[in-house]
Amino acid sequence: MPVKAVDINCDLGEAFGPWRLSDADDAKLMQVISSANIAAGFHAGDPNLMDTTVRLAAHYGVGIGAHPGYRDLQGFGRRRIDGASDEIVNDVVYQIGALREFARRHGADLQHVKPHGALYMELAANEALSRSFIKLMRTVAPTAFVFCMDISQTYRIAVEAGQPVIREFYADRDYDRSGSIVFTRHGKKLDAQTVAEKVVRACQTGKVRTVEGEDIDIEFESICFHSDTPGALEIASAMRAALIASGIRIAPVSEIIPQKEQASQ
Amino acid sequence: MPVKAVDINCDLGEAFGPWRLSDADDAKLMQVISSANIAAGFHAGDPNLMDTTVRLAAHYGVGIGAHPGYRDLQGFGRRRIDGASDEIVNDVVYQIGALREFARRHGADLQHVKPHGALYMELAANEALSRSFIKLMRTVAPTAFVFCMDISQTYRIAVEAGQPVIREFYADRDYDRSGSIVFTRHGKKLDAQTVAEKVVRACQTGKVRTVEGEDIDIEFESICFHSDTPGALEIASAMRAALIASGIRIAPVSEIIPQKEQASQ
Amino acid sequence: MPVKAVDINCDLGEAFGPWRLSDADDAKLMQVISSANIAAGFHAGDPNLMDTTVRLAAHYGVGIGAHPGYRDLQGFGRRRIDGASDEIVNDVVYQIGALREFARRHGADLQHVKPHGALYMELAANEALSRSFIKLMRTVAPTAFVFCMDISQTYRIAVEAGQPVIREFYADRDYDRSGSIVFTRHGKKLDAQTVAEKVVRACQTGKVRTVEGEDIDIEFESICFHSDTPGALEIASAMRAALIASGIRIAPVSEIIPQKEQASQ
Amino acid sequence: MPVKAVDINCDLGEAFGPWRLSDADDAKLMQVISSANIAAGFHAGDPNLMDTTVRLAAHYGVGIGAHPGYRDLQGFGRRRIDGASDEIVNDVVYQIGALREFARRHGADLQHVKPHGALYMELAANEALSRSFIKLMRTVAPTAFVFCMDISQTYRIAVEAGQPVIREFYADRDYDRSGSIVFTRHGKKLDAQTVAEKVVRACQTGKVRTVEGEDIDIEFESICFHSDTPGALEIASAMRAALIASGIRIAPVSEIIPQKEQASQ
Repeated sequence: MPVKAVDINCDLGEAFGPWRLSDADDAKLMQVISSANIAAGFHAGDPNLMDTTVRLAAHYGVGIGAHPGYRDLQGFGRRRIDGASDEIVNDVVYQIGALREFARRHGADLQHVKPHGALYMELAANEALSRSFIKLMRTVAPTAFVFCMDISQTYRIAVEAGQPVIREFYADRDYDRSGSIVFTRHGKKLDAQTVAEKVVRACQTGKVRTVEGEDIDIEFESICFHSDTPGALEIASAMRAALIASGIRIAPVSEIIPQKEQASQ
Repeated sequence: MPVKAVDINCDLGEAFGPWRLSDADDAKLMQVISSANIAAGFHAGDPNLMDTTVRLAAHYGVGIGAHPGYRDLQGFGRRRIDGASDEIVNDVVYQIGALREFARRHGADLQHVKPHGALYMELAANEALSRSFIKLMRTVAPTAFVFCMDISQTYRIAVEAGQPVIREFYADRDYDRSGSIVFTRHGKKLDAQTVAEKVVRACQTGKVRTVEGEDIDIEFESICFHSDTPGALEIASAMRAALIASGIRIAPVSEIIPQKEQASQ
Repeated sequence: MPVKAVDINCDLGEAFGPWRLSDADDAKLMQVISSANIAAGFHAGDPNLMDTTVRLAAHYGVGIGAHPGYRDLQGFGRRRIDGASDEIVNDVVYQIGALREFARRHGADLQHVKPHGALYMELAANEALSRSFIKLMRTVAPTAFVFCMDISQTYRIAVEAGQPVIREFYADRDYDRSGSIVFTRHGKKLDAQTVAEKVVRACQTGKVRTVEGEDIDIEFESICFHSDTPGALEIASAMRAALIASGIRIAPVSEIIPQKEQASQ
Repeated sequence: MPVKAVDINCDLGEAFGPWRLSDADDAKLMQVISSANIAAGFHAGDPNLMDTTVRLAAHYGVGIGAHPGYRDLQGFGRRRIDGASDEIVNDVVYQIGALREFARRHGADLQHVKPHGALYMELAANEALSRSFIKLMRTVAPTAFVFCMDISQTYRIAVEAGQPVIREFYADRDYDRSGSIVFTRHGKKLDAQTVAEKVVRACQTGKVRTVEGEDIDIEFESICFHSDTPGALEIASAMRAALIASGIRIAPVSEIIPQKEQASQ
């Protein structure tokens, strides 16, 4: 830090048949972000929507990420399900493959994998599961980035194993002094400008103000926001404009960070 | 005809969690066949079983095929479900990708795609759907073989489009004089030696005796049998032995038939 | 006709976990209708939502109806699925029972059964299926009303069998001269007052103007509208107000029509 | 103890479409047991099978029990899924209702409810969940028996609340000195006569020999065995014969134990 270029990622394709979670307009969001985490059918997404969303991402030059989750449509992947690491990783293989096939169809590559919801949190905390997951990535996608939290088993093990890895900064969440995110289920509507300033400051100084009112150091390579945050598009647009105005380029991580290996996918 | 080499294919991985359809022993069947059609989770199969089955196939040098079906676990993919061609093909993309990712994990390639059950029959009859499907194959798997019936829209359109295509001979089914298979739900147990002789004769002479008692001409590149046919393993073993004794080599289609294109997958 | 009292029914509980189809506010809709068709988990609805919706209906004195559909969440029950009549009726038994248990929990009775979407249409056209369905109703719910179209196998067979039956008038759909509904997928926003006048006229005169510009006779005991019609709440409120202003009482069918049998449920 | 009459219960209807878990022959098992726990579609069972199984139970005078589980077909309900008590109980309401509707169709009553697998174990340990569940039973099925373990929150709370409740003795499992069952996934084939003697002794003396070689006291009103235990039918038949030879009557719990309330169901 300060960074010259940053990635903005967002979960997209979060619908299922005619079912919606929010009024998020994926086509518009695609124009303000640089990486998309695309639901792969277990917690959200269906083959038709995956096709549409991957096509949109390819069209707008947005980095394509598989967004695997627990097989829990009713719970939107937010409920932890007991399972052996090997079995959970098999579910991940399945979802990565499904998503990657749509990318192939549209002439695009898999840029990254970002696990979803309860699986993301379980990986962060569960060393054995993170090891199985990173071992899988080394085998099937050694040049794809893993998206995770700075403080997580996933990050630590990915670095150890030499897997490309990206830490996220949560634009629409508050941090506490431990560097953890403060979860608030029914958030007040955020002020777009305030979020934009917070993000620019984090990029320029590597610091974020916590809920306790102090600054902490924060390291990240991608900015995450949620498409179901009220006013998400407005917030993302303000963020994008402020970053560009501050001389910070927005680009997919694959364009910012050199990948060590270029194994054919 | 007469052929010097032939493929034997079989549907495998037809379980789901602890659920079984038959007593088929996939590990033993793998040793008598040369190509496996592996269920991909919609009508049968789950990620754990797909992993196991693909690994077995890779281990035994068996050609790996995706076996996509309708999303109908309760009906085992034997019930037709209304749907637009594009939507059905998206389901196929999804399943091919999922299966292919397990192949990638185990260092293997996708050799072929064989649709399952009601989807196989719907493709055979539905020209628009076959066109969408073959168009997909041209895009995502131009060197993978499509398995289908001789008399089918799928075969005709695949040939037109230049997609590698394989016609099947059904070892454990009877033919009528039109060249169609006579479906019998609760078949009597077949005599392994009789089936073996029928198969060798078909390979040597290109002829099969119909239920009406006449011979018809039959063209095929792969022999199909069903793992849930009573005595399947015994039948397949007899067939294999008889073919070899007749000087006919058994090998995956990818080893028998030159593929025109070797696009990277 | 003219009628002194009429029922207004609407499909409710059409969500699934966090997933929504529309912005319909079930609690508000409950206050303008008299009968609710409550999704039972196959095409929409989950146990939590069924509990909430049944509780709301019981609270507002709205007649509780089971709304069974094909097992097709992705297609919202709008895709026909092949199946034997007996098997489809078993799916209906299952859904009626599930819904009825929530009614029992909240001290309410099952007033009616209205099949959903493609199942409603299949029943209308398929005599054998309607016979199986009505036979089931005679067994498990002989005093519950079946909701259907005037011109349908379901109506004809229910009348024959002595099952209480209700014909619907579609407030937010157009009719053609054959008495059929003209399906239009992306309808223009309807004018609430126009719909209200159409409904009052149908109640008073038994006539509706067709898309061809002629009047036809129409018989019905319940008015149906769709909660995902744009402006549904406004339309329903206008309809309700106009009916009351015209001296027509709005009440659940079980309060309007004497039930022949009062078998304990 | 000694008892003059005892119930024998078994999980039945454990298939799904064409899928099987074991070679259990439900029609034969129905003739040796007195109570059936019938899978209700979430972890096993489908509407067609539920219909068949309930009809069989009614035919043989076997007590009909709902056997609700976690919504986890792939894991056969053996994986715990996180969830709020209210939500889990809503899943139970749904399954009880579905099963009860088939009982109604076949002129039978719901005798009992026995939760399945991981849900049974979670209820045993989770006081809040057991309270929600028993509260539900008080509301929707105050005269139906709850089947559970002696040492469990479920038993304690059911007794407190006045809900009819049954403790089980596991014929085909070993006990340790704490009175807990020793879980062994791949058990050796049990000797039918040894099991029969163990069961008769438990009925006559209230004692069972533990894996440590000591006797402990055991209280129960129903004997449970598993249809997927190798040789289940033979074991159950031996058990039945030995009980009868010892003068112990085998009957559904509803015929043995007087129910305090006879609320209409």
